[in-house]
Amino acid sequence: MLPRFLAPELPGHVFALPPEESAHAARVLRLRRGDELLVFDGHGRQVRASVERIDRGAVHVRALGPAPAVPEPAVSLTLLQSVLKTAAMDEVIRNATMMGVSSIQPVVSTHSTVTLPVLVRRHSVARWQRVAVSAAKQCGRAVVPAIRQPEPFEVATAAPVGTSIRLLLAEPAAHRPSTRSVRSIAGARRPASAMVAVGPEGGWTPAEVAGAEANGFVTVGLGGRVLRADAVSLAAIAVLQFVWGDL
Amino acid sequence: MLPRFLAPELPGHVFALPPEESAHAARVLRLRRGDELLVFDGHGRQVRASVERIDRGAVHVRALGPAPAVPEPAVSLTLLQSVLKTAAMDEVIRNATMMGVSSIQPVVSTHSTVTLPVLVRRHSVARWQRVAVSAAKQCGRAVVPAIRQPEPFEVATAAPVGTSIRLLLAEPAAHRPSTRSVRSIAGARRPASAMVAVGPEGGWTPAEVAGAEANGFVTVGLGGRVLRADAVSLAAIAVLQFVWGDL
Repeated sequence: MLPRFLAPELPGHVFALPPEESAHAARVLRLRRGDELLVFDGHGRQVRASVERIDRGAVHVRALGPAPAVPEPAVSLTLLQSVLKTAAMDEVIRNATMMGVSSIQPVVSTHSTVTLPVLVRRHSVARWQRVAVSAAKQCGRAVVPAIRQPEPFEVATAAPVGTSIRLLLAEPAAHRPSTRSVRSIAGARRPASAMVAVGPEGGWTPAEVAGAEANGFVTVGLGGRVLRADAVSLAAIAVLQFVWGDL
Repeated sequence: MLPRFLAPELPGHVFALPPEESAHAARVLRLRRGDELLVFDGHGRQVRASVERIDRGAVHVRALGPAPAVPEPAVSLTLLQSVLKTAAMDEVIRNATMMGVSSIQPVVSTHSTVTLPVLVRRHSVARWQRVAVSAAKQCGRAVVPAIRQPEPFEVATAAPVGTSIRLLLAEPAAHRPSTRSVRSIAGARRPASAMVAVGPEGGWTPAEVAGAEANGFVTVGLGGRVLRADAVSLAAIAVLQFVWGDL
């Protein structure tokens, strides 16, 4: 496979890769004039290109023509994820990107172990964006999911986003009379877009589940066994993509 | 939730927990006479019990009666996993246990980065067993999946194990004319048991795929995007359990 680089704008025929990507191409991969590569814009476009010249560290490439990337899922899926511990959250961002989600909305909920100011101080969004870019490069997608600014759970679940289906994943202990099996969505028509909300290590509070349901979320369970918080999103996305014909 | 302990034999009315479990109960959790706990045997039995006495570090408990554990899947699933790097393999064992697999068959294949002698020297099976026990405790299962002795891929896939369905997961780059969508199994009758084989970081060789197919494996793909090796088993198990009504 050709090496892949991200250039948020693919401006034209001959253009320079962004500084970080230039450094990686020139210093790490030691690409030379004439070497071929793929450049994608993070929004679905990808071109095959060749190195035209390397000028004071900037790698200038010549676009040779469109190059197909791996197919995007038919359903545009937003993962609403309550922020997990650092390594676990990185894992969630990485796997969700590789599975093909369109965007990730981090939220802080009652049982989160961090607060919004801490996430700002840690530059967590920038970190998650880097994780998503790196995962997109590895998995062959030309789309990098948007990482939204973290919000309180109540704010994010109340937002009138236009997704056709909104699901709240509940761990077995939190099952209520309103909890449905994830099988129950299998009969419904494939939506254009969907959102799935996954809780933190400590799960959702009953008030959070009730609040989300009041905002149109359907609470679903993934069987009777307990998964680790960082594994739930992957299992849920896999099942939803299977249901929607995206696997 | 009550603390849970593993005692491979639940011998009767009053019995001592095994040494490691006694140490954990007495020293870490500081259980006292009369405290309640759950004891499971790793094969599906679980009892509610209370601490009867603590005698030179051994915690003797009195069984109070059967206690239901989380339900086991209807399909007994064996994960045949080509050994991954240490942390990734631990993750696979943990998630597969929590998802409810019955057994795990580690294999060494062409692109594995370890050899069978290295696994013996590292006591890898003992390590994986500890990971599986710990995961079973966390997820509420009373079954600890059997961790089989690692074998060469060719040996494990040639064994006349009696599972009704044998699937080989192939990454997109390895798709051959014989590769089917995982959707293709959705129409088939639910098997009593099944095996799913997942490759190492470098994937299967064409010869391995052909060899497995000659031994009755059906090659299936999980969509066009590339997942990390340690995420493939979780996505595959989730989809298979969904297909078989186990989620």
